[in-house]
Amino acid sequence: MNINDAVKEYQSLSRRIKYFEEAAAVMSWDLQTGAPEKAVIGRSGVIGTISTEAFKMLISEQMEKLLVFLSNPENMPHLSRIIQVSVKEDLKKFNRFKKISAEKYEAYIVLTTQAEAVWKEAKALGDFAIFKPYLEKIVEFLQEAAELWGYDGHKYNAMLDIYEPGVTTEQLDKIFGYLKEKIIDLMGRIKKSGYVPDNSMFLKSYDKDMQRRLSLKILDKMQFDLKRGRLDESAHPFTIKLNLGDVRLTTKYEVNNLTGALFATIHEGGHGLYEQNIREDLAGTPLCTGSSFGIHESQSRYWENFLGRSRPFWEMFYDDLLEIFPEQFNGVSVENIYHGANRVEPSLIRVQADELTYGLHIILRYELEKSLIGGDIKVCDLPRLWDESMQTYLGIIPGHPGEGVLQDIHWSKGYFGYFPSYTLGNIYAAQFFNQMKKEIPDYDGSVENGDFKGINEWLKEKIHQHGKLLKPAELLHRVTGEEINPKYFAEYLEKKYREIYKI
Amino acid sequence: MNINDAVKEYQSLSRRIKYFEEAAAVMSWDLQTGAPEKAVIGRSGVIGTISTEAFKMLISEQMEKLLVFLSNPENMPHLSRIIQVSVKEDLKKFNRFKKISAEKYEAYIVLTTQAEAVWKEAKALGDFAIFKPYLEKIVEFLQEAAELWGYDGHKYNAMLDIYEPGVTTEQLDKIFGYLKEKIIDLMGRIKKSGYVPDNSMFLKSYDKDMQRRLSLKILDKMQFDLKRGRLDESAHPFTIKLNLGDVRLTTKYEVNNLTGALFATIHEGGHGLYEQNIREDLAGTPLCTGSSFGIHESQSRYWENFLGRSRPFWEMFYDDLLEIFPEQFNGVSVENIYHGANRVEPSLIRVQADELTYGLHIILRYELEKSLIGGDIKVCDLPRLWDESMQTYLGIIPGHPGEGVLQDIHWSKGYFGYFPSYTLGNIYAAQFFNQMKKEIPDYDGSVENGDFKGINEWLKEKIHQHGKLLKPAELLHRVTGEEINPKYFAEYLEKKYREIYKI
Repeated sequence: MNINDAVKEYQSLSRRIKYFEEAAAVMSWDLQTGAPEKAVIGRSGVIGTISTEAFKMLISEQMEKLLVFLSNPENMPHLSRIIQVSVKEDLKKFNRFKKISAEKYEAYIVLTTQAEAVWKEAKALGDFAIFKPYLEKIVEFLQEAAELWGYDGHKYNAMLDIYEPGVTTEQLDKIFGYLKEKIIDLMGRIKKSGYVPDNSMFLKSYDKDMQRRLSLKILDKMQFDLKRGRLDESAHPFTIKLNLGDVRLTTKYEVNNLTGALFATIHEGGHGLYEQNIREDLAGTPLCTGSSFGIHESQSRYWENFLGRSRPFWEMFYDDLLEIFPEQFNGVSVENIYHGANRVEPSLIRVQADELTYGLHIILRYELEKSLIGGDIKVCDLPRLWDESMQTYLGIIPGHPGEGVLQDIHWSKGYFGYFPSYTLGNIYAAQFFNQMKKEIPDYDGSVENGDFKGINEWLKEKIHQHGKLLKPAELLHRVTGEEINPKYFAEYLEKKYREIYKI
Repeated sequence: MNINDAVKEYQSLSRRIKYFEEAAAVMSWDLQTGAPEKAVIGRSGVIGTISTEAFKMLISEQMEKLLVFLSNPENMPHLSRIIQVSVKEDLKKFNRFKKISAEKYEAYIVLTTQAEAVWKEAKALGDFAIFKPYLEKIVEFLQEAAELWGYDGHKYNAMLDIYEPGVTTEQLDKIFGYLKEKIIDLMGRIKKSGYVPDNSMFLKSYDKDMQRRLSLKILDKMQFDLKRGRLDESAHPFTIKLNLGDVRLTTKYEVNNLTGALFATIHEGGHGLYEQNIREDLAGTPLCTGSSFGIHESQSRYWENFLGRSRPFWEMFYDDLLEIFPEQFNGVSVENIYHGANRVEPSLIRVQADELTYGLHIILRYELEKSLIGGDIKVCDLPRLWDESMQTYLGIIPGHPGEGVLQDIHWSKGYFGYFPSYTLGNIYAAQFFNQMKKEIPDYDGSVENGDFKGINEWLKEKIHQHGKLLKPAELLHRVTGEEINPKYFAEYLEKKYREIYKI
């Protein structure tokens, strides 16, 4: 085989895989947004067939032959950087799937499909027992998989490697340990302050069409390009990149709570900007997405929290808010709104948690899933350990498993190793934010004026454009000159809440 | 090969083809409804790849082997009726494509893609000359194809066979000749009557959201199932069946004309009901669609014209109309509306033509394309012959080719043989309508009461459920006991306009 021919064949195969993935993604988006209720019966077979086709190409003999040839140390130096990193990325995926027998893998897909359905029922009933046997099998599969994939140190590192390549339990234990202490300390001082910001301005009645107008207004200010994307409504907000010219966001409008859709839109807008700003020569390669789950989350959380819950943001957005919801915000000052948007209150449900306590929800999950995969605890211990940690960290205990250990879908789908990326997102975001404020002249002033051009250019130049070409640690180091460092996030929280709560 | 195994393999291959076609169809619908402007750049490659895959399976060696085996006279009698008809249908498609070399076919796809773009420009400029060389090549290709496919009688019969299997020029010459005379005679008497119904109630200003409400109200009355379908807006109204649980319609709202969206919705609703009512055991086979283009059109035209432009319909719909557009219809009687919806006026553009003159637009096109394919006229003669026929049939002449010979997209896409199905649709619809009125007790009363249950049951039982299991002639004969007979359509027109115009 000649290198040029191999590269061409590899590019063509990669593009074909992307095409099939895009087709499946369009149908998946459609099912979650406006497809008729009965469409799914016929559509699921279509999505299954098209997705399987993409998967088969990824683990095909043709792909194996190409990857082996191109990754050969004699050939690698002759490849462009994009091809080099693409080959490494595909090789990793290839090995992950190929090391598990096809029968095992298929059985696992069936298992997780059933597990998700059972989880839904178990959550609704608040009954952990019916979900337990499924979760046990999932954990067992992942433990075996970790052995087949290989790992250094803790077995859970094999899971982390899927979502946050390069990050280990050794690092996370330190980072999360440090953060846990800081957050619990801050929570205690906030409680002692006795101040409870009024957030009733967000809990009135808000017409859905007007909420949509507000959401579109924010996206426009954020410079999310609606010629290359759209905003819809779905049961759970999400972002999906179909291609570089088509990045779709969803949000969810609740009539009696304005913050739900508002912050969901800003959050997904952050993910969306990342995907829209990836350099065009990565299109059709496996690198045309974010660097990692954590880096992706750093972008959504930067916009949602660091910017969206900041005082300058509300200074800027106040007039729009008053124009769209004059009655609801009549007589409410920017300061009131800013405080209302930053009310801290320990709560049971992760996705409803405030910016401060959110981290504890994640650390709790990280500790449990690490111990589960490591074999230190058993699935049957989960409900008890969950409630104990909730008591220790947040001082509250779920009334039933539906609002406790069963609240999240992740484990039913086998997504172990995923949760840490949410808090890593905050940590990365704080590091980027710290750097950005140093490098962008008059950062606060720009936000107050609704001028996000400088911010967007900075994010695109430093982070977005690279897609998956840079590993998370590499990217972080390039931008900030540092490794993961939770200090910036802790300082950010300390400064913000000290000022609001006067502590 | 054993018959059972062959049937299973054939069913599985057919289903797989349907899956790929459905994926491409979802993406095509998406591009035509709400996809972001820039999505198409990336998406066209995806749709192309997925469609080509379906096409390759249809003309694959595996398909050939199965079709040859199953269509063998020794095996055919052992197959179920559905498999028998499916095999015949696929064999027909297989032969149509296989008789043309792959290179020729690919060149033709390129040609029509370019031709469509050139046609768009030519239409905008009113310049036939730039489109002429493309159309010449298309006609040449189709003439050659007809020879390869084979035909009885006129060469154009090979084209008709694609859209309306079984119908020939020999039949159409007679049918259209008869109809042409009747329509021209009726038009003359209408003109002589001097009566011009006022249609200004439809030409005021109508809020688009309210028009959408009105459209959904009609679809609901028609019993179009919105749990298995949806209604969107697009540049040109269309119906697309994705699967039996997902049939999508589009319409187009114009602020200054209510009839556009109103009748487009009813029209597409008629197509949609047909697709929703096909028997479930045809899903995943090539028979899960309408019997022919003409029969499909008979359903849309029945609802749009025979029902939607009838007096009982407006009696029934009057209150809804007044509720949604009280100002616009204040003081307008049902009789006024009925007359306004049936105003006859010769016009240049086919898609804007009234129910009576529409047929002449089709007959004109039929005569020209038959002569073109037959070699009796040349592409360069078209503009002149078009204008001459317009003068003879409708008494008006286009100001430029953009509103004349270039107005329709069909020829640029190579759709010769398609136009006749529009008027065949009216002829079939009249025959079905005649039968329906005999078999449904108090037909007019049901419509006046908005009770379309009996009508829908009749249509489903007699027509819809069979899908493509019955050929058009077979279906028509089963339902009416007759062959194609334009008399019923002529009588229907005569009766309707005689009464309105008092002639």
